[in-house]
Amino acid sequence: MSIKNSCILGAGTLGSRVALQSSISGFHVRVYDVQQKSLDFSLNTMQKILHQLHKSGQISKGQDLDILSRIKFTLDPLEAVEDADFINESVTEDVDIKKKVWKQFGEIAPEKTIFTTNTSYMLASMFAEDSGRPERFCAFHFHDVFYSRVVDIMPHPTTDPALIPILEDLGRKLNQVPVILKKENPGYIFNTMLMALIGAAGKLLTGEVASIEDIDKSWMVNFHMPMGPFGILDSIGLDTAWHVTHKMPDRASVAFAALLKTYIDQGKLGEKSGEGFYQYPNPRYKAQDFVK
Amino acid sequence: MSIKNSCILGAGTLGSRVALQSSISGFHVRVYDVQQKSLDFSLNTMQKILHQLHKSGQISKGQDLDILSRIKFTLDPLEAVEDADFINESVTEDVDIKKKVWKQFGEIAPEKTIFTTNTSYMLASMFAEDSGRPERFCAFHFHDVFYSRVVDIMPHPTTDPALIPILEDLGRKLNQVPVILKKENPGYIFNTMLMALIGAAGKLLTGEVASIEDIDKSWMVNFHMPMGPFGILDSIGLDTAWHVTHKMPDRASVAFAALLKTYIDQGKLGEKSGEGFYQYPNPRYKAQDFVK
Ligand SMILES: NC(=O)c1ccc[n+]([C@@H]2O[C@H](COP(=O)([O-])OP(=O)(O)OC[C@H]3O[C@@H](n4cnc5c(N)ncnc54)[C@H](O)[C@@H]3O)[C@@H](O)[C@H]2O)c1
Ligand SMILES: NC(=O)c1ccc[n+]([C@@H]2O[C@H](COP(=O)([O-])OP(=O)(O)OC[C@H]3O[C@@H](n4cnc5c(N)ncnc54)[C@H](O)[C@@H]3O)[C@@H](O)[C@H]2O)c1
Repeated sequence: MSIKNSCILGAGTLGSRVALQSSISGFHVRVYDVQQKSLDFSLNTMQKILHQLHKSGQISKGQDLDILSRIKFTLDPLEAVEDADFINESVTEDVDIKKKVWKQFGEIAPEKTIFTTNTSYMLASMFAEDSGRPERFCAFHFHDVFYSRVVDIMPHPTTDPALIPILEDLGRKLNQVPVILKKENPGYIFNTMLMALIGAAGKLLTGEVASIEDIDKSWMVNFHMPMGPFGILDSIGLDTAWHVTHKMPDRASVAFAALLKTYIDQGKLGEKSGEGFYQYPNPRYKAQDFVK
Repeated sequence: MSIKNSCILGAGTLGSRVALQSSISGFHVRVYDVQQKSLDFSLNTMQKILHQLHKSGQISKGQDLDILSRIKFTLDPLEAVEDADFINESVTEDVDIKKKVWKQFGEIAPEKTIFTTNTSYMLASMFAEDSGRPERFCAFHFHDVFYSRVVDIMPHPTTDPALIPILEDLGRKLNQVPVILKKENPGYIFNTMLMALIGAAGKLLTGEVASIEDIDKSWMVNFHMPMGPFGILDSIGLDTAWHVTHKMPDRASVAFAALLKTYIDQGKLGEKSGEGFYQYPNPRYKAQDFVK
């Protein structure tokens, strides 16, 4: 099947990015949200990204108008989904909201529409049935679209296997590197590994083996990376990390979740709150002499 | 104290590198081994590295002769340790060999000498007592000296705390980033985190969640890294990874060690044997189109 029309549900951080890339890739895009202010935020976000892409020479002047002209923002579900070849849903990470949205769009979407979700911490099988078409439904999970260009394709038990190659092809058209999961796995591929790394770093800290800075230095210098696990945690948000960690049963995770909680209780959520393991806007780990 | 004379025990892969950097940093260096062929290998290794450092503009022509002139290779323990300010031991990773070497050098080293070991998978406390001077003894663990410039400083319970700042200073003089462990920890800082990452990758593979290539792609593309966990495993050596993993009690490690064993039994040890998870010299993950 040839995909021409994309429908993005949820005009927040991620939805805006997927919508923009869809238009850059030549699709006609409809972006739907329940709030006008989200749609305004979305256009603004896209303009900022286009400005960056222009500055880095990835698009030429004038191309931005062309790209934006293919995107329609709407508060009307029927208009959003009209003639859609695929839906990529990026609404708030809440199971009840996702269930409601999928029930709503399952009832009004054309028969041809492929249903995909961007959920990060849930599994598509928790709300795919609500759409009434679970076999046309698959997780299609972006990271940040422009810098981290991975898209996870994760079928649930009743996903039609014929969707996989279609989504693989779509991922490539959207300038992503598609990776395929053979079954549902919380955290997909990357987050599973990242959480293991962060868990080990947390264990070194709570076990009083080494300091935050020395743990980060070890990672940064050995792998020539711009951040270590605690810098990464600050950019993810300590609240998000706690959300993932606090349900894990092993002793190290329990200790680490407890440590994260002490930061969160002081309002230290990471970069977004101005302080986490480091202080922002100029965290120590970015200083010239940090890895000297 | 001012450090001028360094004594390197074991002229293999790592000892040669630490010896060379010691001389580049201006120290007088004695390199000791039990085999002449190791000493010959060592000089050869150093010449190759100097050639690289020259090509990348880090040393100038002629400087290499100066650097090599400060290094003396010897099969004589007394000559090796004469007037040594510090010993950095890089002999074969075997507890009996380490015990024997430290007993021998504990008896003949000057009183002022600081004793350090590069052991990767053991703890200094397993053989520090053999030196007769455990309080003058500390793990001082390099990674690869020139590319990964971290040095771990890991005291054991009877290490004199006064050694720590001396070794920190020495690490910086040796162009490394020193990181300090507050107590003994198997795998120091970096390997603890790397093994957690690799363990998670192994679990995704043995749990049949995703393929070797898709797991590596997820890591490489998200972090803009030249290798993923299976590429890293191939470069570490599957035998070394098995050595570390097979003693771990958790189910995922047991499964992963079992998987590694199937590769090892077929002679697939990674890059060094021509095949591991990938085939060498041109592994798939280095292909231009791998992350496309
Ligand atoms: N932010 C990221 O980096 C990222 C990365 C990967 C996946 N995700 C996933 O994408 C989804 C959205 O995350 P986000 O960070 O963009 O959140 P966000 O809060 O920025 O945006 C969510 C949007 O959903 C809208 N919304 C709420 N209820 C709705 C409804 N009933 N119908 C339509 N829109 C509705 C909100 O108004 C808001 O604009 C989540 O599932 C998240 O796990 C996010
Ligand atoms: N290779 C690495 O990248 C690396 C990195 C960090 C730490 N290490 C550690 O450094 C140590 C050496 O590792 P390597 O990879 O250089 O090994 P290697 O096999 O390349 O070298 C070991 C050397 O020790 C010599 N030796 C054996 N018995 C001896 C004795 N009684 N007295 C003096 N020399 C003796 C051998 O002849 C050989 O030249 C190990 O403890 C290892 O864990 C290695």
